[in-house]
Amino acid sequence: MIRVGVLGYGYWGPNLVRNFHAQEQSEVVLVCDKSRQAGDRLRKAYPAIPFTTDENEILTSTKIDVVCVITPVASHHSLAKRALENGKHVFVEKPFTCNSAQAEELIELADRRNLKIMVDHTFLFTGAVRKIRQLVDEGALGRLFYYDALRVNLGLFQHDVSVIWDLAPHDLSIMDYIIREKPEGVVAAAEKHLNEVPDIAFLSIYFPDRVIAHINVNWLSPVKVRTTLIGGEKKMLVWNDLEPNEKVKVYDKGVSLSDGQGLHKLLVSYRSGDMWSPQVEQVEALTEETAYFLQCILENRTPFNDGLNGLRIVRILEAADKSIRNRGEAVAF
Amino acid sequence: MIRVGVLGYGYWGPNLVRNFHAQEQSEVVLVCDKSRQAGDRLRKAYPAIPFTTDENEILTSTKIDVVCVITPVASHHSLAKRALENGKHVFVEKPFTCNSAQAEELIELADRRNLKIMVDHTFLFTGAVRKIRQLVDEGALGRLFYYDALRVNLGLFQHDVSVIWDLAPHDLSIMDYIIREKPEGVVAAAEKHLNEVPDIAFLSIYFPDRVIAHINVNWLSPVKVRTTLIGGEKKMLVWNDLEPNEKVKVYDKGVSLSDGQGLHKLLVSYRSGDMWSPQVEQVEALTEETAYFLQCILENRTPFNDGLNGLRIVRILEAADKSIRNRGEAVAF
Amino acid sequence: MIRVGVLGYGYWGPNLVRNFHAQEQSEVVLVCDKSRQAGDRLRKAYPAIPFTTDENEILTSTKIDVVCVITPVASHHSLAKRALENGKHVFVEKPFTCNSAQAEELIELADRRNLKIMVDHTFLFTGAVRKIRQLVDEGALGRLFYYDALRVNLGLFQHDVSVIWDLAPHDLSIMDYIIREKPEGVVAAAEKHLNEVPDIAFLSIYFPDRVIAHINVNWLSPVKVRTTLIGGEKKMLVWNDLEPNEKVKVYDKGVSLSDGQGLHKLLVSYRSGDMWSPQVEQVEALTEETAYFLQCILENRTPFNDGLNGLRIVRILEAADKSIRNRGEAVAF
Amino acid sequence: MIRVGVLGYGYWGPNLVRNFHAQEQSEVVLVCDKSRQAGDRLRKAYPAIPFTTDENEILTSTKIDVVCVITPVASHHSLAKRALENGKHVFVEKPFTCNSAQAEELIELADRRNLKIMVDHTFLFTGAVRKIRQLVDEGALGRLFYYDALRVNLGLFQHDVSVIWDLAPHDLSIMDYIIREKPEGVVAAAEKHLNEVPDIAFLSIYFPDRVIAHINVNWLSPVKVRTTLIGGEKKMLVWNDLEPNEKVKVYDKGVSLSDGQGLHKLLVSYRSGDMWSPQVEQVEALTEETAYFLQCILENRTPFNDGLNGLRIVRILEAADKSIRNRGEAVAF
Repeated sequence: MIRVGVLGYGYWGPNLVRNFHAQEQSEVVLVCDKSRQAGDRLRKAYPAIPFTTDENEILTSTKIDVVCVITPVASHHSLAKRALENGKHVFVEKPFTCNSAQAEELIELADRRNLKIMVDHTFLFTGAVRKIRQLVDEGALGRLFYYDALRVNLGLFQHDVSVIWDLAPHDLSIMDYIIREKPEGVVAAAEKHLNEVPDIAFLSIYFPDRVIAHINVNWLSPVKVRTTLIGGEKKMLVWNDLEPNEKVKVYDKGVSLSDGQGLHKLLVSYRSGDMWSPQVEQVEALTEETAYFLQCILENRTPFNDGLNGLRIVRILEAADKSIRNRGEAVAF
Repeated sequence: MIRVGVLGYGYWGPNLVRNFHAQEQSEVVLVCDKSRQAGDRLRKAYPAIPFTTDENEILTSTKIDVVCVITPVASHHSLAKRALENGKHVFVEKPFTCNSAQAEELIELADRRNLKIMVDHTFLFTGAVRKIRQLVDEGALGRLFYYDALRVNLGLFQHDVSVIWDLAPHDLSIMDYIIREKPEGVVAAAEKHLNEVPDIAFLSIYFPDRVIAHINVNWLSPVKVRTTLIGGEKKMLVWNDLEPNEKVKVYDKGVSLSDGQGLHKLLVSYRSGDMWSPQVEQVEALTEETAYFLQCILENRTPFNDGLNGLRIVRILEAADKSIRNRGEAVAF
Repeated sequence: MIRVGVLGYGYWGPNLVRNFHAQEQSEVVLVCDKSRQAGDRLRKAYPAIPFTTDENEILTSTKIDVVCVITPVASHHSLAKRALENGKHVFVEKPFTCNSAQAEELIELADRRNLKIMVDHTFLFTGAVRKIRQLVDEGALGRLFYYDALRVNLGLFQHDVSVIWDLAPHDLSIMDYIIREKPEGVVAAAEKHLNEVPDIAFLSIYFPDRVIAHINVNWLSPVKVRTTLIGGEKKMLVWNDLEPNEKVKVYDKGVSLSDGQGLHKLLVSYRSGDMWSPQVEQVEALTEETAYFLQCILENRTPFNDGLNGLRIVRILEAADKSIRNRGEAVAF
Repeated sequence: MIRVGVLGYGYWGPNLVRNFHAQEQSEVVLVCDKSRQAGDRLRKAYPAIPFTTDENEILTSTKIDVVCVITPVASHHSLAKRALENGKHVFVEKPFTCNSAQAEELIELADRRNLKIMVDHTFLFTGAVRKIRQLVDEGALGRLFYYDALRVNLGLFQHDVSVIWDLAPHDLSIMDYIIREKPEGVVAAAEKHLNEVPDIAFLSIYFPDRVIAHINVNWLSPVKVRTTLIGGEKKMLVWNDLEPNEKVKVYDKGVSLSDGQGLHKLLVSYRSGDMWSPQVEQVEALTEETAYFLQCILENRTPFNDGLNGLRIVRILEAADKSIRNRGEAVAF
């Protein structure tokens, strides 16, 4: 039985407690939060799970195998570091760390001690993203052209991080999972209106072979949108995560160009066929993810969403921030 | 009776012929196109309107007051210039010219001869855009935060211009009409996949007072989207041009921040009230626009969508191209 | 060359003129309408087609092969009868006649003289309805369970007929085309609010083998809806005619029941698979229909949407009226 | 503290337990279900609440003030009767009883003993239905014309009741709440395909003053729809319960007729103005309802959704069944 301690019982922490509590191969042995109200909420939901306001009880306990770091980003590095130093596997909420140096240090530390890091890019465990990855890997879309994500709604405002560090990690981790290439450069723009951090931002990411990605995140939208377009040479795909049933639609549409006769005579032919919406598994992503983490620990395997995965996302976030500071300078890798 | 000659009878030209033909204060006296098939189409629809393949017949005619330049962008400058030199008012399809030097020359020329230039930013004459402008001008939205436009679909591929010069002028002219400020800088990214010009592009435009605009144009999208979000301090607005009836929706939603107690304790309060969809005039925009052009000529008034308006849009297009060439360099004005 | 005369140049007549004018095997030789303004409209659009306000000029002309009866329903029978008596084929707008006796008389008359009647159930020639028929005929849906159509919007109010005789013929003719069975009975309800004819009505039609159809028509709806659900044992289908692209969606969904152990223990198993939206031909239905009519005449074939087809629909309309008068009495056939 | 016993811990029972558990003025003292697995689920969620499989422990307990009857319809009457005979208030899931005689007996019994009956027509406590009732009561819609509800989806199949008794009580109770008139007659049609009870049904309900209601319920629809149209003389309303935010939309649309000159010359004028979507309270309906029930008990007030309310709905269900058996006979009241 893998014994789990959870640091942070705010918005997301309860989902970790619920899942590690329900998994057959793990138990939640201690939960920590600075807020006593969090303790009240825990007690009401799980009377049997002990609560503390002292993080050290988790970090130094000899009866804990896994530490979940579900706290504000600023504390990820120090908490994860101490957990690793105390021989514990860590499950860290996204974004992994505040910068790439912190991420590299944690990766190196885990490596040295043969401990697992999993960065909680939850979307990678949804039925929709798995199905999209499968379609791309099978070649159903053909050569990729672009990845264009829109993730906007009203709030939830964060005090400590910008809309980029808050929302974009979702799309960047999915993009990384689908495109599977190292980006060449990032061009970004953003603006802040209410607070000292951007609340609206636009990221363009260049990849080799003319693949381009774009991410539009916004905390000030009157409507909630979660839509991603993926264009390929053979087919194109729309993923609308707010659709209850038909989340992924694959369009047999495309354009091809061929030489016509004479100067400037390109012949354009459009193809427009059926649309197909594959059924997508309706599982809770976090259930899949926590089960996979336990399995990785038991089988001593490296999760695909490990520290390196978290680091790749942090690097793009850093590059976006730099590009914005310099009003659009392309930040190369 | 204002006598109109139309250069170009391809995709858009027939709409100009139909409208200037139907207006009470104008008549279409000659239509020119290089293609004889265009002549056949004209004859079928308007047996009484003469046709020529020789543009000089229009440009030098003494019986023509207005020349419509509805030809590929590359020819706008030379055709409009000759029309102005021959004392004719000109109505030019968007984008106005290939670069700002050309636009400036035409403006100066029209000015010297007291001739009118109208650049066909048709959307400015739609009921939806007029209503949005009215709402913004009345202060219904409060201080503007952002303008975010999405205009994507499959094709229509142009041989001579990129998706930026083809689709973005619509959104840039509307943005210019709504925001009414001079932009401070442009940051853009784009990629080409099938042809030698970009088919997908992302433009971010910085304005004074933290207003930011963003335009996403794409010729390779499997679905057609025409949606613009406009965020203000008091209200927010969604314009979906594909909705048959409820094109404009105004949301009584917003966020305000106030100081809480202690460090880093900003209190966020969300406001979420009614939504309201004002009825929008269902007129054909081009009918309004051509009537307005005739009125400007008859009353010797300068249209608001004049050469300077066209020039402002061309400058942003130039800046976007430059930013893309330099992989994101912010191009300041 | 088949010579066509058109009676009625109001809302729908111009579409007949345009189509028979454009078909290679026909020409429109005379158009009649009581209204002189109709003549002005015709002259503007087709200067070469002669116009009359005297229907006899069409009905008795020896230079006309086909008479289109595009007039109010009340006049269909007498005009079509005279046309047939004068040896002309007739193309009659839906609904065919005011009652089944009139329809039977016309059918008998055409039969005796070997003339063709086509009843203009235009929807049968749309890409969507053809695709649905094909899917049903191929057995893709399995045994049919139900056909449920919703056709509501604001107006267009008719003075002479109810919403049932105005809108329901569309759905009844499609239902007839898809289900291909003789109905067993009709149960209907309706109400009138502004005029002396119903403006909202609900028709249920029983077919053999537990197939049931339902049609909801309403002139007083604030929103326009054109949606039909078709349920089958193997698959289910949604046809939304207002969707610009994905009009037909086929769902791999279903329920099956099997006996469980013990009393009242039916095991229900739900099946929920992919959704598939076949591409649908984007042709103008009336172009297909008029071409088919000309072909039937030239090849001396009976069209499938002949007088008998029109009669079947009129019988259901009559039955619905009777059921409503008797507050729901099932009218059997 | 009002002491609550809950009979039935299947699909809906847990929601009652959760709500009466959370209300400050009540406590759940005992839960009963025939199934031992139900007991396991209860124990996991509420370790402190005792469980029994013997309904008599609840029905005869002297420590219980309120009995919730959340069991199959067939048992509602006998369980509620015994609870009332033992001096307990009863909260009964919809539909109230299997027939009106049963309902009348319970009402009479509760009346005699001054006990409260609440029938769980939960939708009457949603923000959307309250808002619609308020709009109708304020006269915002003007005189009512029709109420047209569509409630279709795949399953959940019931073994004991038809789709009419399962789904229609929702719409009938809302209709009753909005229209506030006694119906004059019911005309219904239905069909069964998999089981011995109808799985698709259409109910038309005539009210005085030309108000008509229509309810379309279907267990075999591939898509889930929850849409109600309400037409009035002044305005019209669409309630889409699946919309996360804009559930209620009020349209300033209408038709008026006036006499024109001469025979059959009614002038139709259409009005089409703004649309307005009022914000709707986002409360859990059952929380409101249970609080209201407790308040009614404490203040000895009769709830508006009492036994008589339940009886009115049962009478319409009975009439629908009779109409279907007789293939459409209008069943008068």
